[in-house]
Amino acid sequence: MLSVNKQRIEQKLFTLGKIGRNANGGMDRTTFTPAEIAARNWLKQELLQLNLAVHVDEVANIWGRREGTNPELPVLAFGSHIDSVPNGGIYDGALGVILALEVMHVLEENKVKTMHPLELVSFSAEEPNPFGFSTFGSRAMSGKITAEDIVGVTDPDGRLLTDALQDAGGNPNVFASAVRNPHEFAAYLEVHIEQGKRLLQRDIPVGIVTGITGIYREEVTVIGEANHSGTTLMRDRSDAFLATASMALALEEILLNYPDEEVVGTIGQVFVKPNATNIVPGEVTFSLEIRGQTSEKIQDVLAKWEEKVQIIHRHRKVKVEREVKLDQGPVPMSEKIMACCEEQAANLSYPSYRLGSMAGHDAAHMASVTQAGMLFVPSLAGKSHCPEEESRMEDIGKVGNVLLHSILALDNSH
Amino acid sequence: MLSVNKQRIEQKLFTLGKIGRNANGGMDRTTFTPAEIAARNWLKQELLQLNLAVHVDEVANIWGRREGTNPELPVLAFGSHIDSVPNGGIYDGALGVILALEVMHVLEENKVKTMHPLELVSFSAEEPNPFGFSTFGSRAMSGKITAEDIVGVTDPDGRLLTDALQDAGGNPNVFASAVRNPHEFAAYLEVHIEQGKRLLQRDIPVGIVTGITGIYREEVTVIGEANHSGTTLMRDRSDAFLATASMALALEEILLNYPDEEVVGTIGQVFVKPNATNIVPGEVTFSLEIRGQTSEKIQDVLAKWEEKVQIIHRHRKVKVEREVKLDQGPVPMSEKIMACCEEQAANLSYPSYRLGSMAGHDAAHMASVTQAGMLFVPSLAGKSHCPEEESRMEDIGKVGNVLLHSILALDNSH
Repeated sequence: MLSVNKQRIEQKLFTLGKIGRNANGGMDRTTFTPAEIAARNWLKQELLQLNLAVHVDEVANIWGRREGTNPELPVLAFGSHIDSVPNGGIYDGALGVILALEVMHVLEENKVKTMHPLELVSFSAEEPNPFGFSTFGSRAMSGKITAEDIVGVTDPDGRLLTDALQDAGGNPNVFASAVRNPHEFAAYLEVHIEQGKRLLQRDIPVGIVTGITGIYREEVTVIGEANHSGTTLMRDRSDAFLATASMALALEEILLNYPDEEVVGTIGQVFVKPNATNIVPGEVTFSLEIRGQTSEKIQDVLAKWEEKVQIIHRHRKVKVEREVKLDQGPVPMSEKIMACCEEQAANLSYPSYRLGSMAGHDAAHMASVTQAGMLFVPSLAGKSHCPEEESRMEDIGKVGNVLLHSILALDNSH
Repeated sequence: MLSVNKQRIEQKLFTLGKIGRNANGGMDRTTFTPAEIAARNWLKQELLQLNLAVHVDEVANIWGRREGTNPELPVLAFGSHIDSVPNGGIYDGALGVILALEVMHVLEENKVKTMHPLELVSFSAEEPNPFGFSTFGSRAMSGKITAEDIVGVTDPDGRLLTDALQDAGGNPNVFASAVRNPHEFAAYLEVHIEQGKRLLQRDIPVGIVTGITGIYREEVTVIGEANHSGTTLMRDRSDAFLATASMALALEEILLNYPDEEVVGTIGQVFVKPNATNIVPGEVTFSLEIRGQTSEKIQDVLAKWEEKVQIIHRHRKVKVEREVKLDQGPVPMSEKIMACCEEQAANLSYPSYRLGSMAGHDAAHMASVTQAGMLFVPSLAGKSHCPEEESRMEDIGKVGNVLLHSILALDNSH
């Protein structure tokens, strides 16, 4: 039975992991920086060594194509991204590309012919970046970002996104050519680290992603009354910070008691006004974020929270203003791909577990083009986007094998 | 029976209230600004018109002296300050100086001779100001700020405090000469607006201040774990903001249930890190302030809060670091002066009420020099340090009469 080579994976992971490594051991490979361009060049060399046809598309996504035996069939695509957050880790994104490379390597060295053409993809600018577009490559490729959207867009240093794209091998002048026709694809499969603790806590090596989590965000402003912190007695206060504290704890309580653990909510950004030691806070603006696998669950939590907010605002004599900033619906992964991956894991005697993504991924956008699926590798301590980010080679090898055999199974099922 | 002239008080209050008034109707008379210097000049003219001996001391406190019949006796001093916070009101500080002027006026027009010399005082820089010294004049006069402390001190524009003092008529070269000998004083009495709602809620016109409230401040840092707001399930989080929210509500609960309403606590300044919509807060730094009439009460509240913090930090798996930033002990007012003021109010058939200052005042520093007392005038809606700051002329007249007769009574009691 075909199997991925863990040593080779590890060696490539650490080789790529040196490109952009900073003095703290963190990964500084923000999209379109010199380090990220260097990583692109490394990847292109790797693809060429595997006799793949390398193509950098108009939005600088890198594709490595291996022809199938039947030229009529659409592409089985798989990959991820190689850019990182500032001071991130070496696994987020890169692991999915390295495993895709390894699949190509195993097929090549074993002279395996697939019926479908295979394409490895490394998407541009998946992570949040100074140009303000995350999952840029997959959004552009699926027609969700157009040439108009990027006109005049710069990073804070004034570098034009169009120039950066050109530096990375893209061609912003014919931006629309990056859009691929759904008929060209048979499926998309992506491996990524989980970035949470669910697999680790269950001691399961293979995560089968059920869907890309929906994200709902509001900016909430609580208006109380700024007052002298000495002369205003406790009972006479309309303290916007205490009202915010109550709202934050109410949200947590709703979520801790919610029957689905894959619905989470966060108040991550808080601004207090006037923010002085001797003034009772008059106004607080905070971000509310709720994530869930279905819009119904997100709305259900929101409704429960609104009930609590009503009570709090009356009790504390504050006004509450709310503005929706993001309402990105959940994207289910293909049931066929989930079942296929599960079957391969079972054949290999690896325990697998279905779980929501909780984070955003390029697969969310590929799902609008073709049937998409994701495999998760357990993250040690659940850490990600930090130098301590890590996954065990043993788990990586198992997920690599599930990827390899799922692609072969998908090839046969069409 | 001698009585203050409400019309005259009102007219002077509004005349002085025009100096530094901004377009929003707020008072911009920060210390040593051109507007404040203009107010000083206006005051000196008023003092001269009342045949008082005007003296600007080395730290630019303005004194207006009226000799008594017995040159052996020490001074009965009374006054307040004429500087304001940015965009403040016309009453804070100025009212105490205007009522002191009115007392001098009544004595002068009625040819009343006192045994003690009387001195009206307008202290320099009572409010927080760009030089970083509040209650500057009274602290310097009572020996708590020395020439060394102000060497090289500038405002953010680089203006030297020593230059500003000189512009206001002070003489920083002989700074120490501003210190007055305790034997020179018999008593100090100050009228100020309450800045809270206690008198108003009780419908009492005359507040007798029992003490200048003690202020205790800490900077508290709560260290949790910054994490991805999607992939980190609720039960796996160490959210520094939720821990802070619990600590804030615990403080409020302790204080709302505390038997003394004049103990208050505030979390006024809050900084969240990394303060991003999609990251569980990893660290929060906040200010804790507790004010009370005795150090025992402040420490009692602090101990009760510490107990709660212990529980919260264990439960939420966060670390808590604390640093004391200020521990300014309460300063009791003279029982003799309180009793004297109460007696005068009763003689005039005005209800009076004993209450803590809750805010800082020059009287706290005068109390280290001589027996000190304060009278409070009700503040409408409890508002202060804002353009809406207001007190009723009726209440002002009553407190003015209590001030007048208290000075006469103190004159006779020595």
